[in-house]
Amino acid sequence: MNVKSTIFFEGKKFIHGNTEAVQDALTVEEILNISINGAPYTMTMRTPGDEDALVRGILLSENVYIHSQVNPVFTVDEINDKGFITKMDVQIPLDALQSGIDTKRNLISVSSCGMCGKSEMELALEGDAIQPTRKLKMAHIAAMFDQMSTHQETFNSSGGSHASAAFTTEGILLSIKEDIGRHNAVDKVIGSLLLENKLHLAECLLVSGRLSYEIVSKCFRAKIPFLAAVSAPSSMAIEYCQKTGISLLAFCRRDRCTVYTHFENVE
Amino acid sequence: MNVKSTIFFEGKKFIHGNTEAVQDALTVEEILNISINGAPYTMTMRTPGDEDALVRGILLSENVYIHSQVNPVFTVDEINDKGFITKMDVQIPLDALQSGIDTKRNLISVSSCGMCGKSEMELALEGDAIQPTRKLKMAHIAAMFDQMSTHQETFNSSGGSHASAAFTTEGILLSIKEDIGRHNAVDKVIGSLLLENKLHLAECLLVSGRLSYEIVSKCFRAKIPFLAAVSAPSSMAIEYCQKTGISLLAFCRRDRCTVYTHFENVE
Repeated sequence: MNVKSTIFFEGKKFIHGNTEAVQDALTVEEILNISINGAPYTMTMRTPGDEDALVRGILLSENVYIHSQVNPVFTVDEINDKGFITKMDVQIPLDALQSGIDTKRNLISVSSCGMCGKSEMELALEGDAIQPTRKLKMAHIAAMFDQMSTHQETFNSSGGSHASAAFTTEGILLSIKEDIGRHNAVDKVIGSLLLENKLHLAECLLVSGRLSYEIVSKCFRAKIPFLAAVSAPSSMAIEYCQKTGISLLAFCRRDRCTVYTHFENVE
Repeated sequence: MNVKSTIFFEGKKFIHGNTEAVQDALTVEEILNISINGAPYTMTMRTPGDEDALVRGILLSENVYIHSQVNPVFTVDEINDKGFITKMDVQIPLDALQSGIDTKRNLISVSSCGMCGKSEMELALEGDAIQPTRKLKMAHIAAMFDQMSTHQETFNSSGGSHASAAFTTEGILLSIKEDIGRHNAVDKVIGSLLLENKLHLAECLLVSGRLSYEIVSKCFRAKIPFLAAVSAPSSMAIEYCQKTGISLLAFCRRDRCTVYTHFENVE
């Protein structure tokens, strides 16, 4: 059983105008499906390890059973080809189930939100890989992040919101939005471009935080070929960018940035 | 209609051993229920404003309709007593609906994940307010965060994970866990305490990131009276801590920290 919480990925780091090959440890993001008495209950995108604790914590939060009254049996139902647990079943006596068993439709929690379900994950990534029409010049990236941060009014006053923005590869700002949830900020950007009939112009999507699988899936659905973040990507974000043709840029700070996928489109 | 993205809250700031009354602008977190042709589709915890864009972005991500073929009608169905939109309906011709309409059970996205649904929100907060048996001394807080950060192995190697930890009010570490999702880190901590039969000892829950409604609900369900974060709280996190008896501490850095609720239990 694999309980590694980080995996090494190859990257190409741009720093002070130079490039170097790097091997970076990144946080593992994998799906965990949870069933109760054999019936699907919920799933979460999480870092492997402590599955028993994670599931118990979720079931307490959701009031699925009274922990002082029953001690459910937890079993591993599925392990994927990387050795990570992807499904756990919990056996709980029917008469011990509480109201939380009925709120499963409202429970989907993902690494930083949004969508899920193994088959839906595959569905979400169906379709041809994205082919950018133009390459991205690294020189434009820092200026894009500068532009985004000058527009982060909510963050600048509260310190508690995420931002996302869309640009052309030449650094022309198309939309910037903020939200308490990073996935919402991305949805607002994409939705505002739809409203203004500008989505086809968007070539580069920026996010203020980290990059998880879910943001990649939104970027792919919007057909945006470059995705750049201030902070770290998850393992699954990299794996899905690789598959979908998206160039993933992370750790974008002033004079540095690391590209993890589709280097050929960044110069 | 209210589209404010920040609200001022009163806090008590501890800095260099002194205290001062502060008024801080914090990011607004409110629920948005989305229905399609009158039937509930999903809900998200978000910052008000740009509701049209947000909903369009979600529906594109989820492949609910093909945006180039139909132009749905968006209407505001509900505004709460604070003036924020809390429900939007989208009218889409039935024959234009795509497969994404069926994945709604998998769609719940919240400000930084997890649970939702107005009635479930109320349910989650049912029960008596928490009464701590001991007060929390501010002097212990910095040491707790120091302990947590020395245990953040995944973060220290990858820069891409959240941490959560549980302590007694005297600063004794009970559990620390990491995960790509902050809610998962909290669930792992609470679940590990359940496994070791130590949950009743937990008096203070720490999180490495920001505080949203969902983390408060987990803290309340676990009956932990003090909740402390490195970063900012959302408006709803404060409102629910007020109701549930939890003392909320945020912006906890070395020599400073701001308490926003139940000051009477912090000394």
